[in-house]
Amino acid sequence: MGEFELIARHFTRAAPAGGAVVLGVGDDCALLQPTPGHQLAISSDMLVEGRHFFAGAEPEALGHKALAVNLSDLAAMGARPLGFTLALALPAADEAWLAPFARGLLALADAQACPLVGGDTTRGPLTISLTVFGEVLPGRALRRNAARAGDDLWISGRTGEARLALALRRGEPWARGDLAEVQERMDRPMPRLALGQALAATEGVRAALDVSDGLLGDLGHILKASGVGAEIETAALPLAPALRALDDQHRLDCLLAGGDDYELLFTADASAHEAVLAAGTASATAVTCIGRITPADGGMLVLDRDGTPLPLARHGFDHFAD
Amino acid sequence: MGEFELIARHFTRAAPAGGAVVLGVGDDCALLQPTPGHQLAISSDMLVEGRHFFAGAEPEALGHKALAVNLSDLAAMGARPLGFTLALALPAADEAWLAPFARGLLALADAQACPLVGGDTTRGPLTISLTVFGEVLPGRALRRNAARAGDDLWISGRTGEARLALALRRGEPWARGDLAEVQERMDRPMPRLALGQALAATEGVRAALDVSDGLLGDLGHILKASGVGAEIETAALPLAPALRALDDQHRLDCLLAGGDDYELLFTADASAHEAVLAAGTASATAVTCIGRITPADGGMLVLDRDGTPLPLARHGFDHFAD
Repeated sequence: MGEFELIARHFTRAAPAGGAVVLGVGDDCALLQPTPGHQLAISSDMLVEGRHFFAGAEPEALGHKALAVNLSDLAAMGARPLGFTLALALPAADEAWLAPFARGLLALADAQACPLVGGDTTRGPLTISLTVFGEVLPGRALRRNAARAGDDLWISGRTGEARLALALRRGEPWARGDLAEVQERMDRPMPRLALGQALAATEGVRAALDVSDGLLGDLGHILKASGVGAEIETAALPLAPALRALDDQHRLDCLLAGGDDYELLFTADASAHEAVLAAGTASATAVTCIGRITPADGGMLVLDRDGTPLPLARHGFDHFAD
Repeated sequence: MGEFELIARHFTRAAPAGGAVVLGVGDDCALLQPTPGHQLAISSDMLVEGRHFFAGAEPEALGHKALAVNLSDLAAMGARPLGFTLALALPAADEAWLAPFARGLLALADAQACPLVGGDTTRGPLTISLTVFGEVLPGRALRRNAARAGDDLWISGRTGEARLALALRRGEPWARGDLAEVQERMDRPMPRLALGQALAATEGVRAALDVSDGLLGDLGHILKASGVGAEIETAALPLAPALRALDDQHRLDCLLAGGDDYELLFTADASAHEAVLAAGTASATAVTCIGRITPADGGMLVLDRDGTPLPLARHGFDHFAD
């Protein structure tokens, strides 16, 4: 048995009883049995060393994050996970790396009932490619193009901590605070799967996506796809304690343009306000109304405490673009 | 718009009407609607430059082959393709490479009604990661573990030409013949999708897989998974004209251990002989009975014209192992 077959065995688990997996790793294909009447939601991500993670990144956190960011796409559609495949290129079969990587990956897979069903392992520059599958009832998937003027704009959890963690790790001069308080938000994001499914089942919830590149940038995708505008009230943005020590500008930059948040940004009819709060409660996830959807000609406005629009360009929301 | 968004647009097509694709590229997930009552078959492959293909490989053929080898896994299960995702790491957004790669990839996708539904593009060492999805009726997937003693052993098409093409390209001293006659078999394998689906619908067809690593090596996977043995009659092996000029040993090596064939190797009850031939005819694919499945203690025997077992180890069927 070659070293890469050994690796493959490292990732092989018995399929969980009662799940959708009819046949897991080991044949030409995996076989899944989706719930009758459901649609399949699919997302692929590729992570390359030196681009998406540092060479030498802690492998257990990397295994967690590789799956988490992909599951976050399922969450954003309101889909329930069925399973995933992993294609992995490795410079060498290094057990000291593989064991914690598999541990981090499979712990999240277990926690979210999303088993590894197949994949491929090969020698090459460290590259992690995942494809996740989920299911959702026809017509219930939360798409980017469904926002309507008048909708409330909501965010799950809170944004900005991952960006602060990155700044503290890099030693950026404006960063204040204790890395230990925020680094989990960067290293181990938790996909908002329960909330996404609860929202997909809630009448009046319309568009959604997951915030991976910064709240404003990702909001722009909803606005473009839906042909609408939006207003955000900065006073309404949920503020992590760790962000309080920052100066106003960098705090707002972290909140609105930080990236790596993996929160759900979604819109809902104003009449669904209580139902959205209930979906948050049912999924044990904080949800906060942070503004509203406007007609397209309203553009994207960020309002300060007095309701005055902030000058977005002057405010430098592309600080972190690279 | 960044160069990688431009690339993504290069691969974006409208989903074909009447297919399973509800939502293609552009949202958090793609959405597919499988046929009610079917199971989902999934396979992932990763191809790394310098390992699975030469640096400088012709990009149109590479696009074709990357999808072909993945579709071959669907064929081996008897599944009908629904769609695929592509994750692509590229050193740079080189249009002169991307245009023909996308052309080769999407031409096969169109021909096999398997649309690209999503994926990811990033900068990195050239790495191609595909995941294909297909569907099959419950209980009809052709698995490796279903062979029974007494089954006939069948192969589609013919083996060995891709290995001869590789040898001619490399200038291996034993190789004879015209590269132009065989290089398509190496560069543009055609997945046996129509045959696989016809076989999955044929009573009495049991185990199957696709031959990618050489006929004997892949047969070994069926024998191990099914707990059986097999006898192959060398006189029955379909022989490509290009292989006739080779010496006996290298001809047999190409036939039995060549690799990169992407033919279907399958077993069927002897009573299904005519039905298997009919499945071949219906799918316009040659099928040849090349031996039979035996009890496990029979091991794997390769019989010469007189029915005498060839000494496999002495014959050197691991010549090409690396």
